[in-house]
Amino acid sequence: MARRPTIADVARHAGVSRTSVSFALNDRPGIAEETKERILAAAAELGWTPSRPARALSLGKAGAFGLVLARDPDQIGADLFFPAFIAGVEVALGERGDGLMVHLTTPEREESVYERLAADRRVDGVLLTDLRHEDPRPALTHRLGLPAVVVGQSEWSDGLTSVGLDDRPAYVAAVRRLAELGHRRIAHVEGPQEFRHAHRRRSAWEETLGDLGLPPGPVLPGGFTAEGGARATRELLSLAEPPTAIVYGNDLAATAGLSVAQELGVPVPERLSVVGYDDNPLTRYTHPPLSSARADARGWGEAAAQALDRVLAGEEVAHVVLPPAEFIPRASIGPAPRP
Amino acid sequence: MARRPTIADVARHAGVSRTSVSFALNDRPGIAEETKERILAAAAELGWTPSRPARALSLGKAGAFGLVLARDPDQIGADLFFPAFIAGVEVALGERGDGLMVHLTTPEREESVYERLAADRRVDGVLLTDLRHEDPRPALTHRLGLPAVVVGQSEWSDGLTSVGLDDRPAYVAAVRRLAELGHRRIAHVEGPQEFRHAHRRRSAWEETLGDLGLPPGPVLPGGFTAEGGARATRELLSLAEPPTAIVYGNDLAATAGLSVAQELGVPVPERLSVVGYDDNPLTRYTHPPLSSARADARGWGEAAAQALDRVLAGEEVAHVVLPPAEFIPRASIGPAPRP
Repeated sequence: MARRPTIADVARHAGVSRTSVSFALNDRPGIAEETKERILAAAAELGWTPSRPARALSLGKAGAFGLVLARDPDQIGADLFFPAFIAGVEVALGERGDGLMVHLTTPEREESVYERLAADRRVDGVLLTDLRHEDPRPALTHRLGLPAVVVGQSEWSDGLTSVGLDDRPAYVAAVRRLAELGHRRIAHVEGPQEFRHAHRRRSAWEETLGDLGLPPGPVLPGGFTAEGGARATRELLSLAEPPTAIVYGNDLAATAGLSVAQELGVPVPERLSVVGYDDNPLTRYTHPPLSSARADARGWGEAAAQALDRVLAGEEVAHVVLPPAEFIPRASIGPAPRP
Repeated sequence: MARRPTIADVARHAGVSRTSVSFALNDRPGIAEETKERILAAAAELGWTPSRPARALSLGKAGAFGLVLARDPDQIGADLFFPAFIAGVEVALGERGDGLMVHLTTPEREESVYERLAADRRVDGVLLTDLRHEDPRPALTHRLGLPAVVVGQSEWSDGLTSVGLDDRPAYVAAVRRLAELGHRRIAHVEGPQEFRHAHRRRSAWEETLGDLGLPPGPVLPGGFTAEGGARATRELLSLAEPPTAIVYGNDLAATAGLSVAQELGVPVPERLSVVGYDDNPLTRYTHPPLSSARADARGWGEAAAQALDRVLAGEEVAHVVLPPAEFIPRASIGPAPRP
């Protein structure tokens, strides 16, 4: 491996003294503009860089947190969770003029994005969202020495501080309420099962049905998208014995489901009850208003940024547990239709 | 003003030679760990930093673009334009592993955020969105030497490169179509008028009515929000002579308007035609599906990032003009009701 160029190399290359190089690089007066330019050109040509410790010293804090999202751009662009979460992070950072560095990537390229964030000290720490099964990121951030906070359940955090907001209670409450209303065929349109939160939502639905002695209803993938929710709803409503209630992985899929039901002449809630998740600002304006779960994405972002602040300050931060998601019944659910 | 500390000062303070300081700061071998730590501590204590040219050299490109949003966090969190636009920027940046630095601020603090981005070289350039009347940002970025691209009309750009996507044609087409359908009382629920795009949309509606010889309908503020759209719709529908059509500043306000109309027993489109703007992924799933305007926020973000790339490469970039927004009629509009 090539030795990294030093100030002495730059001096030799530019034909000047090391003091001149130091003056030029430190932008101090007393050196001719032309000489300075020659030195800067030589430094650039040799690829001279101060080492990481020097950089760390020079830049102090990066003044930014990182958020790396390994999702499809169209998915990000349609989901109101992200702007609300990002707005919450910004509320915490904005007060001191700091920013959030957002990277969109693929699971394949993810590791290199974190490596670069760490190597270039572009961020002081990162927020890890959308935890996956056997997620490589907690170990990766440990290895890179990159401070990190897991946005999710403590048992996913692999020793990192986590900031959790439990989605389970909302699913349990929704399924129990539907059962009280007489529903026996309660379906689920699930999010991508590689995500632990999507898997957790599915388990909550399944286990609550089991606790109630009800058979597991049909489950279809909805991909957390409007298109996926629409497709799954069409399929469910064309079954010989269609469900009388559908619990969706998020509001986006549920809103599309509402619309498909109406398009197919299945009145909501008379023939079909519909439940979403996220309580995004549009749910109360769907027709009928969508039952959902309030999860406070903005507050979550704010709490996650504050937790990362405390981690960076060297505090021993326990897991932060936010109030769980709360089931919000609205007019999209009603008594099960008589057979 | 205090002179900025030099490597010589650090050497004196740590009681070592300048060569040792250089070794320590460049992380080169041949220096005891303890000495190195003393030097780094001295440098930190004195607040030694490499000068801006040295930093520029050392870091090369910042590898990030900046996006500073001076909007209310709740507004950002509810609007699907932003995640789609950001996703587009990321598509352009992500291929080379770069990121987008997002700052949320207020109009009062905005200037200091740009100053810091420029001084710390945190970004290679910025994208200016939500242009306001007499917007200080084009002149500010000139003064700071911060490369910038205006996301909006060329006449707002004050000499900067702009990337425009004209919203006017969609409004003109919507109002003309409503007039063809027999509507004579066509109202507008406008976005915040300090924004030039919101003002332009209002003008397009107003001038088209004038061109058609129709009286200007009532106009109420909707703030680009669901709540604002709902409030304005309630007020419009309680007028002695309510409008038979409402053109909204964006989809969020229009979706809420649809819902309020139904709540008040005003069937859409039989008694009221409704038009939004943005064609966000949920509009085709409202009930009835919302007429809107396709504006390709993601493509806009991608084009803006590419234009800034060319500006940074020193190219003379003309204004970039994307295909204009296209009116998308759906079931939320219909013939004007008989008086």
